[in-house]
Amino acid sequence: MPTRRGDDSTIIVMQRDASPDDVAHVVERLRDVGAEAHVSEGQLRTVIGAVGDRAAIQQLPWEAFPGVERAVPVLKPYKFVSRDFQTADTIVDVGGVPVGAETVVAIAGPCAVESRDQLFAAADAVQQAGATILRGDAFKPRTSPYSFQGLGEKGLELLAEARTEFGLPFVAEVLDPRDIELVSAYADLIRIGTRSMANFPLLAEVGRQPKPVLLKRGFTATVEEWLNAAEYVYKEGNHSIILCERGIRTFETQTRNTLDISAVPVVRHLSHLPILVDPSHSGGRRELVMPLARAAVAAGADGIMVDVHPAPETALVDGTQAILPEEFANLMDEIRALAAALGRPA
Amino acid sequence: MPTRRGDDSTIIVMQRDASPDDVAHVVERLRDVGAEAHVSEGQLRTVIGAVGDRAAIQQLPWEAFPGVERAVPVLKPYKFVSRDFQTADTIVDVGGVPVGAETVVAIAGPCAVESRDQLFAAADAVQQAGATILRGDAFKPRTSPYSFQGLGEKGLELLAEARTEFGLPFVAEVLDPRDIELVSAYADLIRIGTRSMANFPLLAEVGRQPKPVLLKRGFTATVEEWLNAAEYVYKEGNHSIILCERGIRTFETQTRNTLDISAVPVVRHLSHLPILVDPSHSGGRRELVMPLARAAVAAGADGIMVDVHPAPETALVDGTQAILPEEFANLMDEIRALAAALGRPA
Amino acid sequence: MPTRRGDDSTIIVMQRDASPDDVAHVVERLRDVGAEAHVSEGQLRTVIGAVGDRAAIQQLPWEAFPGVERAVPVLKPYKFVSRDFQTADTIVDVGGVPVGAETVVAIAGPCAVESRDQLFAAADAVQQAGATILRGDAFKPRTSPYSFQGLGEKGLELLAEARTEFGLPFVAEVLDPRDIELVSAYADLIRIGTRSMANFPLLAEVGRQPKPVLLKRGFTATVEEWLNAAEYVYKEGNHSIILCERGIRTFETQTRNTLDISAVPVVRHLSHLPILVDPSHSGGRRELVMPLARAAVAAGADGIMVDVHPAPETALVDGTQAILPEEFANLMDEIRALAAALGRPA
Amino acid sequence: MPTRRGDDSTIIVMQRDASPDDVAHVVERLRDVGAEAHVSEGQLRTVIGAVGDRAAIQQLPWEAFPGVERAVPVLKPYKFVSRDFQTADTIVDVGGVPVGAETVVAIAGPCAVESRDQLFAAADAVQQAGATILRGDAFKPRTSPYSFQGLGEKGLELLAEARTEFGLPFVAEVLDPRDIELVSAYADLIRIGTRSMANFPLLAEVGRQPKPVLLKRGFTATVEEWLNAAEYVYKEGNHSIILCERGIRTFETQTRNTLDISAVPVVRHLSHLPILVDPSHSGGRRELVMPLARAAVAAGADGIMVDVHPAPETALVDGTQAILPEEFANLMDEIRALAAALGRPA
Repeated sequence: MPTRRGDDSTIIVMQRDASPDDVAHVVERLRDVGAEAHVSEGQLRTVIGAVGDRAAIQQLPWEAFPGVERAVPVLKPYKFVSRDFQTADTIVDVGGVPVGAETVVAIAGPCAVESRDQLFAAADAVQQAGATILRGDAFKPRTSPYSFQGLGEKGLELLAEARTEFGLPFVAEVLDPRDIELVSAYADLIRIGTRSMANFPLLAEVGRQPKPVLLKRGFTATVEEWLNAAEYVYKEGNHSIILCERGIRTFETQTRNTLDISAVPVVRHLSHLPILVDPSHSGGRRELVMPLARAAVAAGADGIMVDVHPAPETALVDGTQAILPEEFANLMDEIRALAAALGRPA
Repeated sequence: MPTRRGDDSTIIVMQRDASPDDVAHVVERLRDVGAEAHVSEGQLRTVIGAVGDRAAIQQLPWEAFPGVERAVPVLKPYKFVSRDFQTADTIVDVGGVPVGAETVVAIAGPCAVESRDQLFAAADAVQQAGATILRGDAFKPRTSPYSFQGLGEKGLELLAEARTEFGLPFVAEVLDPRDIELVSAYADLIRIGTRSMANFPLLAEVGRQPKPVLLKRGFTATVEEWLNAAEYVYKEGNHSIILCERGIRTFETQTRNTLDISAVPVVRHLSHLPILVDPSHSGGRRELVMPLARAAVAAGADGIMVDVHPAPETALVDGTQAILPEEFANLMDEIRALAAALGRPA
Repeated sequence: MPTRRGDDSTIIVMQRDASPDDVAHVVERLRDVGAEAHVSEGQLRTVIGAVGDRAAIQQLPWEAFPGVERAVPVLKPYKFVSRDFQTADTIVDVGGVPVGAETVVAIAGPCAVESRDQLFAAADAVQQAGATILRGDAFKPRTSPYSFQGLGEKGLELLAEARTEFGLPFVAEVLDPRDIELVSAYADLIRIGTRSMANFPLLAEVGRQPKPVLLKRGFTATVEEWLNAAEYVYKEGNHSIILCERGIRTFETQTRNTLDISAVPVVRHLSHLPILVDPSHSGGRRELVMPLARAAVAAGADGIMVDVHPAPETALVDGTQAILPEEFANLMDEIRALAAALGRPA
Repeated sequence: MPTRRGDDSTIIVMQRDASPDDVAHVVERLRDVGAEAHVSEGQLRTVIGAVGDRAAIQQLPWEAFPGVERAVPVLKPYKFVSRDFQTADTIVDVGGVPVGAETVVAIAGPCAVESRDQLFAAADAVQQAGATILRGDAFKPRTSPYSFQGLGEKGLELLAEARTEFGLPFVAEVLDPRDIELVSAYADLIRIGTRSMANFPLLAEVGRQPKPVLLKRGFTATVEEWLNAAEYVYKEGNHSIILCERGIRTFETQTRNTLDISAVPVVRHLSHLPILVDPSHSGGRRELVMPLARAAVAAGADGIMVDVHPAPETALVDGTQAILPEEFANLMDEIRALAAALGRPA
């Protein structure tokens, strides 16, 4: 792991009445972990700039040290996924479809694969409307152990058949590190779902396989934690990572989660990775999908991921939010008009 | 206050082992408050529909009654501001500018009035760029008592001068019921700020004066609480209410607040009142203003309200988020393009 | 207002590639607002300590300045309510009852005054059980304009009668600055409710009258915002302030709000003001009152404030959470046992 | 899986203008999934009680059906961990120590095992002070991939040595389903950490091994989601589950997380499983550990889990919150006094 030495990773602000011993103690601990300490004795207060391996420095409990007022991390804890590390936008190839390039991408399909008929009806419709990547899961994380958990490998086989039939690469979720080899053998893009974003062993494993990774934001994760999760994947060697905002948990109850639309420009500023928005799972209501998809494109997202189901009220998972094929076709028309107004094809 | 009698306001679900006495007790209390009780004895469980004045019914502590499992309010606690009450969109006239009609409206100007020069420079610029209502406050609510609190009446006088000079009606905040007469005498639109959204005496007072009211969402209020606040204004007789989403408090720290973009379609569904978005205060960062303004229009907002300052770094209030006049002109170009793509003028 | 000059109020960390002009610009702006700048040129990065009036310094939008990475406020924005300003615990006299001294205090009574019978039954019971201050409101802030809003002056008269009859000073809420004179004429302790915590004109006004103030935490306010609110009262001249934690808004729905029990030791560390806990409004459920009251005392609160109602299911406000007189007597027994185990009388 | 047929699992409230066809459609879909429908035609509105397998019923997207106003789940989604299923408190045996019985239990030790010396110093101290279970982790989930990740099997070996030396059974975290066999071979109690609470494959796997499970609450999980997670473990056959509250994510920044003290009585009411509190990770600050531990016991927790480190400022993980051995001894004295006041040994 290359360390960019020479950066202050943390500014340690001493208390006004800190003694010289307190300062010396901080400096000594910094040296213990291989860091340099730059001491600036102000008129009233001493400030120490710590230079060295940021992980080593930031994990010390500075605010438990005598005489320390506050420790301010100056560098971000992630590196490779940061715009500081790579200025140019990353473009991820998903079975021939570039994500993060000029074209606004649409991923669409049913939340869960339920049957050949259901999947093919959805795939046919979304392909005709202009989606270029198919979604559909074979493994579902469910809050209740008594809910439908997915078709497993049978679902992956159906997705592979649909790929051949409709010419759409597909994305599928993986939940368990022991299933990665299986999902990776079939899918064009591996999804890490919102509940798995902080599953560090899973992140490391998908970082060690070759298929690109779609990393959804934990619905309770800060943007910084999300980028740290992407760093887990990147540092294992897999640099093809797409981020996907899907709403965060707040006090508001009108929507299942609150779409954090600001995350789109914030992430584009902090990171070079492409970012999509899922307007289906954030709102959790069918009638919100279209306005939220439009907002996503207007805010600068590289694409959207939408639940489309031929018969939502029979859906085994999340039917409340799936839109109908004809609604999806309208949505694509609106997306194209908006993208054009912003100078992007869709 | 007209009561729409004949609506079930609440469904009271009894426990499986509720006794006939428990049911009788609920029915009796309903009659005490002038409501009718419709008892449906299911095979396993009794359900009571309560019909009558919803406020009277909903304020009883049903879940503290013996034998009651749960009370489910079916009607919303607000009435007049609801789409159920009025299907057609309300259009509010602000000094000749219609808000809530087809045209996407831009309100712009400095957060606080600081001086004649500052205000006039901003007003000139926003008028030229296409804003049709000026913003600028004379009274500011500040978290710290040591922060700048506004110029008071002097600020209102300057705003009135700017109105004459640039032909822009203006909006100004009121904090104290004792200032309403003063602010109402000058301003074209009275703003209730986010920290005052649950200041019920203030809401009632602005409901009793003739100028239209711009009601910002409390940054910690649910949409339902916000519509209840609008109801406070409406029921006093003032029906010219414009809502404004401005971000809610969440755990995310990259932005000052999290813009709840979903609130735009949610409010349009629940209420007939126009809704604006403030992309400046929600993000709290200059570089977020443009993408959030675009998202607002794409999501269906009737307009935006933007902080513009000729020299943000000298601003006495919220300079971190103000954009420059030239940035605002670019923003207006983008808004017009997006609105046109959606079939709306701007 | 005495300014403690000589404190660094803010540490301004420059970017690594900040130019000498960027540094000079920051220094110049600091001098413009009357502050001193202490520049420490580190090996890699320059850090500027700003010394002077903290309000003037902290309100500048430093992060909008060219070359500035981050501005870290070192001093808290409040002063007089801080432990730094006064080391000794403040003890507030409420009609002869000391709050903040060794004895754990119990304030109890109905949420709203509904009638003479209801109030007197409650007052009698809580006095016998050991409460030393009576609660009961004449003005109620209600989310819906259609809910019961309190008896007004008639309620205050009944409270004054109960004071004479049972020898208990009482606390009552004020919502509107125009009612302060009235409430202050009757009550021994003026309460600022959770929805009014950021009503700055109201805070300033109660700071100008002589009765002590009970300041509830806004259910969406940080501890820092709460202490800023207390500062608003203090700086107007009224130093008799009691804080009261009452739960904050979170995503959890089992309870009305989430009691932030950590706020008790956090506030004791940051401020010299006494702190109470309201276990009734935080949980919003009768069966939670006793365990939360015990937790409050164990965490070090100076007292509790509890809703007690002789017939909760007839209550016009918040009946779901009121406990019965006999439950309150048991609660007081438990509180006394716990306080004794911690070496405090109750 | 035994289904308790005969319970209404959901009440479906139809809209006022729902047609007979809409009602018939709901009834038909209920029959499709093997449920019975009890239709109550009220004067104004029809209400349908759905009786049958709750998972099948609750996963249908009722609110997407024509004519449906709202679907109200009446039964909880979990069964076996509910008080409805088992009235008596569960007592879990952890290497001979009963958890959930009368005695208040203390689990203590370092957050992460760093070395033999560090672990043994801590174990010796906590055993002398009265802790009866040792904590110490060999696998750590870290937000940043660059932080210390634990000693792995070497750490488990040291914990097993400490068990022999000090007579304390120990708890250790497992992160990856592939490590369960290893951790289970050494530890007396398997911990599922806060970031893994919604890792459903991991939950199912620990449900299939014989050691008892300590399930921490996800810091962003509702109590209902937490009990659903416990249900995942229980239904695989492992009924020895201990819950542990450790703070939730809120907007407050004074503490790392907000200890949800109300969760203690709420969980005791909903479930028969024992519940502990972790006052170290919730507050994240050393000086909060003691007051929060006292509050936990006062609120009725069955025990506490505390980070104790012989030299917190050298700790590789979470040193900011670890207390010293002598502080832990004082804490145990206070816990014993409080527990005694409540009639429980400690």
